[in-house]
Amino acid sequence: MGARTEGALVWDKRDDMVVHESEPYNAEPPRGALADQVLTATDTFYSRNHGPIPRLEPTSWRLRVDGMVDGARDFSLDQLRTEFAAHTVLATLQCAGNRRAGLIEVRDIPGEDPWGPGATSTAQWSGVRLSDVLAAAGLSPGAAHIAFDAPDVSQLADPPQSYGASIPVHKALGAETLLAWAMNNQPLPAVHGAPVRVVVPGHIGARSVKWVQRITAQRQPSDNYFQATAYRLLPAEADPSDGLSLGAVAVNSDILRPDDGASLPAGPTEVAGYALAGGDRGVARVDVSVDGGRTWRQAELDDQRSPWAWQHWRCTLTLPGGEVEIIARAWDTSAAAQPESPAQLWNPKGYVNNSWARVHVTVDR
Amino acid sequence: MGARTEGALVWDKRDDMVVHESEPYNAEPPRGALADQVLTATDTFYSRNHGPIPRLEPTSWRLRVDGMVDGARDFSLDQLRTEFAAHTVLATLQCAGNRRAGLIEVRDIPGEDPWGPGATSTAQWSGVRLSDVLAAAGLSPGAAHIAFDAPDVSQLADPPQSYGASIPVHKALGAETLLAWAMNNQPLPAVHGAPVRVVVPGHIGARSVKWVQRITAQRQPSDNYFQATAYRLLPAEADPSDGLSLGAVAVNSDILRPDDGASLPAGPTEVAGYALAGGDRGVARVDVSVDGGRTWRQAELDDQRSPWAWQHWRCTLTLPGGEVEIIARAWDTSAAAQPESPAQLWNPKGYVNNSWARVHVTVDR
Repeated sequence: MGARTEGALVWDKRDDMVVHESEPYNAEPPRGALADQVLTATDTFYSRNHGPIPRLEPTSWRLRVDGMVDGARDFSLDQLRTEFAAHTVLATLQCAGNRRAGLIEVRDIPGEDPWGPGATSTAQWSGVRLSDVLAAAGLSPGAAHIAFDAPDVSQLADPPQSYGASIPVHKALGAETLLAWAMNNQPLPAVHGAPVRVVVPGHIGARSVKWVQRITAQRQPSDNYFQATAYRLLPAEADPSDGLSLGAVAVNSDILRPDDGASLPAGPTEVAGYALAGGDRGVARVDVSVDGGRTWRQAELDDQRSPWAWQHWRCTLTLPGGEVEIIARAWDTSAAAQPESPAQLWNPKGYVNNSWARVHVTVDR
Repeated sequence: MGARTEGALVWDKRDDMVVHESEPYNAEPPRGALADQVLTATDTFYSRNHGPIPRLEPTSWRLRVDGMVDGARDFSLDQLRTEFAAHTVLATLQCAGNRRAGLIEVRDIPGEDPWGPGATSTAQWSGVRLSDVLAAAGLSPGAAHIAFDAPDVSQLADPPQSYGASIPVHKALGAETLLAWAMNNQPLPAVHGAPVRVVVPGHIGARSVKWVQRITAQRQPSDNYFQATAYRLLPAEADPSDGLSLGAVAVNSDILRPDDGASLPAGPTEVAGYALAGGDRGVARVDVSVDGGRTWRQAELDDQRSPWAWQHWRCTLTLPGGEVEIIARAWDTSAAAQPESPAQLWNPKGYVNNSWARVHVTVDR
C-alpha cells in the first residue's frame, strides 16, 4: 500500500490505482474504473514508464527536428502554439502489455508486470499535427521513419539509455498523429509527458513518446532499445534476434463490469466493457457468452465517437447460479475476431494478449 | 466434368479449374496451382460471378461519373488512357467466401458454394487511379462513399438486379485503387471485367467491380443488394437485418502443398502456402504445427513484393508416419493472429473463414 499511496500523491492519481511498480511508476486503474466512460479522467489514465519521470521546464524546453529535412529546426513550446494550427483528437492509448496477466496465467513471464485490462485509457489530446511540423522542417521524400527521443533514462534497457521509438512516415503524416501539450483540456501533467508528448492513435502506447525532445526523419526505424529490441512479439520458442516489431494494435476487448471474482445476486446482471480496433479499423461487433463460447449474444455497442477511440458495450444477462465464466470477444471492421486461447498467444515478453476476455463470478442460486 | 470443360473452353481457364457453378461461372484453381508464384497466371485466376458474363465492346463502352461531383462526366476507354497517367499495382484479390468449405464442415450453408483456398489470386493490374478520375470530375467534400454499377444482372439478388458495390471515399482516394484495363500486361479478358474493372486492393473481391460502367459519389454506401444485404458477416444466430458489411480483409493463410488428402513418402516434406493481410497491414510471420498447435515452427516467408499482395511461405518438416494434420497460421503486422477454430467463425453466409489452415496427409512409416 505504501507504493500506492506514494504514486497517488506524487502523480495525482486516484488512490485505488493498481501500482505494479513505483520506480519507475507503472500503474493502471482498477477494472471497474474504466467502465462506461468514453473519456478516462486524467487521474485514472494508466501510466507506463521505463525510467524516472522527468520534470521539465516548459519555457526552456526545445524540440529539435532533424535528420532527412531541409534543415534542422528547433521549436519552443510558444513557437509550436503560434506557428501551427491546433488540433484535438479523441484517442485511446493501449500498452502492448495490456492484459499480460492472462498470459502469465498460462506460463510465467519473469521481469514483466502483470497488467490487467486497465493499461488502456482514452483522452482528448490537443496540440499540433506532427505532419505540419515535419512539413515546416522540409521533410525529404526518402525519409521512411520518424524517430522520437526523450530524456528519461531507463536502467532496464540494454545498455541503459534514454527512451526512444519510431513510426513509419505514413503514420507520422496522418492527421491523427499529434505533438500534444494538453490532455482532457488541461496542460499535460508530468507523468503523461509534459510539456509535449507524441500521440500516435491506433498504435501501441510505446510509440506515443512522452517528454519528446527530438524528432529525426530517417531511412530506418529507430535503433533505440525500445524500438529495436523491446516491444517485439517473439515466437513462443524465442529467438531474441527475431520477432515482430509492434505498431498498429490488434482488435481487443475486456469486461469491466462485473469485476473478476465478484459475487452477484440472482437476477439480471449488466455486463459491460470496452472494445478497441487499432490502425485504420473500427469495432464492428461484440459478442458475449456464458456457455464457454457455444452460443453468443450480441452486446449493445456505443457509437464510435472517434475513429481512434475505444467503444464501450453492455449486455444484460440472467446468469445461471453458481460459478460462471463470462466471455466477450470483439470483431473489427475487417471481420477479424479476437482469438480464443491465451495459450496460443503466449510469447516471451507477454505482449498483445487479445484473446477472448473472461471474468469469473459467483451467482447466488 | 461437363461444366469444367465448358468453363475452361469459354473463359480461357485451365482444364483443372474447380468449377463450383457454370452459370453463373464460379471457379477456382486447384490448391497446388497457386503455390510458390507471386503472380497468378490469368488462366488460373479465380472467377466469381453473380450473373452472366457481359461481353462489352471496348470502343462503345462509356464510364459515367456522377453524383456528388462538379458535373457528371462520361469517359471513353481512349479518354481514360490519354487523360490520366497509367499505373500498375501488384495486388491480390480474395473472395469473402474463400475457404468457406471449412465452415461448411462445421454446419451446412445451403445455397453457397464450397470455395476452397483458391478464391485468392494475384495479378499485375494496370489502368488509372480512381482518385485521378474523381478529381477530374470534381469530387465534392461531402462525398463519403464511391459506388460502382455494372451491367451484369444477377437473378440471385433479391430482387434481381445488376451488380453494384461501394467503398469508403478514403479507400477510393488511395493510390492503390485503380480502374484497370489490363491484367498481367494483357488486356483484361471478359471473364475478369473487360473493358474496365475496379481493383480495390486489400478489400474483399466483391468491391472490385467488373465491367464498371458508372461511378457515383454519394453520402451513403450503395443500396445495391450486394452491398446492402449480401457480403455481410451475420451473427451465427442470424438477424438478417443486421451484420457487418465486409470491406478490408482479415489476416488469412492456407496450405497449398502438400494437397489435402495426399499420401507422402517418409522423409523431409516441404510445406508451402500463402498468407495475406488486408487493409493497410502486412504479413509478419507464419507458423506451422504438426502437433495440433502445441508447438510451432516459423516458416520462411517471402519478401513483400507489394503492400497489396500475398506472400508465399515454406517450411521443410519431417512428418511422423501415419495420419498427420498440418496446421498453419499467419500473424499480421498488428500482431493479430488467425483464430483457431472454424466453429467459432461459422456464420450464415459463410464469409471470412480465416481460422487456422489445416490439411490432412498420410505419411509412410
